[in-house]
Amino acid sequence: MTSQALRIVVWGENVHEHTNPQVAAIYPRGMHTVIADGLRALLPAAQVSTATLQEAEHGLSESRLAETDVLTWWGHKAHGNVSDAVVDRVQRRVHEGMGLIVLHSGHYSKIFKRLMGTTCSLTWREAGERERLWVCNPGHPIAQGLGTYFELPHEEMYGEPFAVPPPDEQVFISWFEGGEVFRSGNGYTRGNGKIFYFRPGHETYPTYFDANVRRVIANAAEWARPPVARWMDSCPNAKNSPEKIAAKV
Amino acid sequence: MTSQALRIVVWGENVHEHTNPQVAAIYPRGMHTVIADGLRALLPAAQVSTATLQEAEHGLSESRLAETDVLTWWGHKAHGNVSDAVVDRVQRRVHEGMGLIVLHSGHYSKIFKRLMGTTCSLTWREAGERERLWVCNPGHPIAQGLGTYFELPHEEMYGEPFAVPPPDEQVFISWFEGGEVFRSGNGYTRGNGKIFYFRPGHETYPTYFDANVRRVIANAAEWARPPVARWMDSCPNAKNSPEKIAAKV
Amino acid sequence: MTSQALRIVVWGENVHEHTNPQVAAIYPRGMHTVIADGLRALLPAAQVSTATLQEAEHGLSESRLAETDVLTWWGHKAHGNVSDAVVDRVQRRVHEGMGLIVLHSGHYSKIFKRLMGTTCSLTWREAGERERLWVCNPGHPIAQGLGTYFELPHEEMYGEPFAVPPPDEQVFISWFEGGEVFRSGNGYTRGNGKIFYFRPGHETYPTYFDANVRRVIANAAEWARPPVARWMDSCPNAKNSPEKIAAKV
Amino acid sequence: MTSQALRIVVWGENVHEHTNPQVAAIYPRGMHTVIADGLRALLPAAQVSTATLQEAEHGLSESRLAETDVLTWWGHKAHGNVSDAVVDRVQRRVHEGMGLIVLHSGHYSKIFKRLMGTTCSLTWREAGERERLWVCNPGHPIAQGLGTYFELPHEEMYGEPFAVPPPDEQVFISWFEGGEVFRSGNGYTRGNGKIFYFRPGHETYPTYFDANVRRVIANAAEWARPPVARWMDSCPNAKNSPEKIAAKV
Repeated sequence: MTSQALRIVVWGENVHEHTNPQVAAIYPRGMHTVIADGLRALLPAAQVSTATLQEAEHGLSESRLAETDVLTWWGHKAHGNVSDAVVDRVQRRVHEGMGLIVLHSGHYSKIFKRLMGTTCSLTWREAGERERLWVCNPGHPIAQGLGTYFELPHEEMYGEPFAVPPPDEQVFISWFEGGEVFRSGNGYTRGNGKIFYFRPGHETYPTYFDANVRRVIANAAEWARPPVARWMDSCPNAKNSPEKIAAKV
Repeated sequence: MTSQALRIVVWGENVHEHTNPQVAAIYPRGMHTVIADGLRALLPAAQVSTATLQEAEHGLSESRLAETDVLTWWGHKAHGNVSDAVVDRVQRRVHEGMGLIVLHSGHYSKIFKRLMGTTCSLTWREAGERERLWVCNPGHPIAQGLGTYFELPHEEMYGEPFAVPPPDEQVFISWFEGGEVFRSGNGYTRGNGKIFYFRPGHETYPTYFDANVRRVIANAAEWARPPVARWMDSCPNAKNSPEKIAAKV
Repeated sequence: MTSQALRIVVWGENVHEHTNPQVAAIYPRGMHTVIADGLRALLPAAQVSTATLQEAEHGLSESRLAETDVLTWWGHKAHGNVSDAVVDRVQRRVHEGMGLIVLHSGHYSKIFKRLMGTTCSLTWREAGERERLWVCNPGHPIAQGLGTYFELPHEEMYGEPFAVPPPDEQVFISWFEGGEVFRSGNGYTRGNGKIFYFRPGHETYPTYFDANVRRVIANAAEWARPPVARWMDSCPNAKNSPEKIAAKV
Repeated sequence: MTSQALRIVVWGENVHEHTNPQVAAIYPRGMHTVIADGLRALLPAAQVSTATLQEAEHGLSESRLAETDVLTWWGHKAHGNVSDAVVDRVQRRVHEGMGLIVLHSGHYSKIFKRLMGTTCSLTWREAGERERLWVCNPGHPIAQGLGTYFELPHEEMYGEPFAVPPPDEQVFISWFEGGEVFRSGNGYTRGNGKIFYFRPGHETYPTYFDANVRRVIANAAEWARPPVARWMDSCPNAKNSPEKIAAKV
């Protein structure tokens, strides 16, 4: 069953790339294309495509989502422009089993806040400081192929408290040059779907070219592969009881 | 600090009582008044009041919620009539620390689905069958004053799978005469707020007069008392780092 | 990586089969051989062998455990005869990544109590009653190939409270004819190793011939396959810090 | 019920204080007396006493433990000298409901490893570097009275991976000057007992005089107060079923 090609859609907000020359210089074809390139390089058997905010239905039609195994999500300044209908649809697919990888500022996206049920707030600072991600669980599938830690020379800082439910699986915790820490690789299951929040990826740094970041996203995509079974999530009436019920007055 | 009077609001949808004579016969003054009576009897020091769907802002204005420590929620056929603005407000208060006790068919309320991030679906049957609730964690504050189990002679059945995130604290599991089981007392923390889902309470049975059910709801209200600290849940910029950051090019 | 043959050792206490004619009649070659037969039938690519209490080192030498991916454990009346040295060894292998499937009365084995850190007590009754196991998480790998529930016509009853840490993954909950419930399929991770407790399997019933029981054990063995990485679990001194530390007085 | 005086025993290994002049200079009357002083100052209503390795039964007789609500544990070089009989006894009391606060190098104590079921290993470095403990959950009772973080100017470093089960409650994460991070305030429940692991406290620094460290230990003692109910943790036979069981052949 694991031999079927994994179908991954990389979703990008695709706004900063067109409004901020610094971002455009790093990601001239958009951050989403670079994330997709990384997945294609590491998962040659996967079918990787992209979708963006600007497309009809943000590129996430019912039929396309029905054929998506794992969705990655990067958004920042335009969270409010994502239509509620599409968010409903993505949430439903996660409940059915689609994996979801939420990247960096996606912590404040409608879909992540919906799935967590919390504010997903944190503290932050843009100072281009060094981040070091420590592996908390070396046996976890998402940590395979990494050392005991890896570094990013320049990143935005995200700091605790991170207002999310306690992660089911803690894979990474970040150290920042400026003195903060952050739970930066967090696994959840919601319905049938697996969700991985991965912290790095500020738009003004070439983070999605980094080999370790690419390895993590690829590992997470494999980890988030949908289960075979689909859960009939519809409150069915169980009219016929397995046991005989005594007659009631 | 635990000596301050607990301020509890019992929220009732208050619809079945006016449309179903069977419900009106059991709860002539509304289910919410009976739930409130139970709390007053067991927590004499608490300030217990009620609110209903039909009141302005469903009885849950900003100012009232600001002075509420614990909210109990019963709804069923009119979930869709609860305004999104009020749901937003309740969710925000839970994140700030207000306790929330979700009763029975409240599993499908907007507020519970929002806080869980899942569909909250289950299977069900109305056959007036016997329910037996087993205590899974006899040391839990919500189980104090109960035996190893307690029974309700007639209840609606709710069965697994219950599409919620894994409970942080499993207090009860139910056995049903017709052959099903259900995780029927589930504790969660979301932001600063504690949430307890408690299964029993179908409108056509006098469940909220039951001494054990009342004990559980009162214990849960005490357990869900807000913490002293309030979480500044607003993504603040941490401009001044505790450590000096090396100058960046 | 998942193509390597899974190496499973089925461990059996192998005492009741020789002292209780009723057990000998059902399992003339021992319970362990029947459990192993079930695994071989469903996982033809796996290498399945058995080990028993009576063998030297209970059949679990250092070298054999080093080549074991998943160990299943059934014991009951002779828990106390298992040598502490072998228990130490099994625990170490679980920490390294070996999967462990603990069956029925194995809840009171030294190895399970060690890994849980709790008493693992429960209530019980031998009345040959009906057990129905409900799937709580239809998307879980261990639940694949099953219906919404399955039944065993005659089993020993185990009831709540089950004194274990809250399971990381709740796959089954049991309903018993006599009125109890039990968390009967519980997943844990300890170190690198995955642990699955599966309730059914009293020695006086032909439970390990049951197709659904066999399916669950085979699914659990696949689920418990060790991760690729091994955790250096030895408190190493991190003499060389990634960051320069200011000179101390 | 919360008005009864909390009975706390502070256990100290009490070895380094007699063999290392540097430790003796900071803690001339032993580390345990300083920890006890801190508790007495912050919890004036509590009954605080001390016990050490050198006393008969390490000062932890059956009768004394029976009258202990919360035990704090500091040990390091003499973990192996703690008698297994006393460890058994302490573990039993935790299962009954006694709270346990494990300090610093106590991560490798027999009692903590027993309760966790894992190796409890970590990485470490003695370089007197700065530690900053971040509050991950500002609403948690153990974090009350603290700011968003607090610092210790000189401490031993402990780094991830910390080989413990995923904490039920994550209260603190530490940042270290040398570049590491660590889950440094971890809450668990095992049986009826609450367990808090708190990282700081290397013997060569005056950590237990620090006001924030004292505040955390006092808060944790209150948090770990035993529940009223005691769990009969003894595998009782439930001969009389609540439901009538059909006659078996």
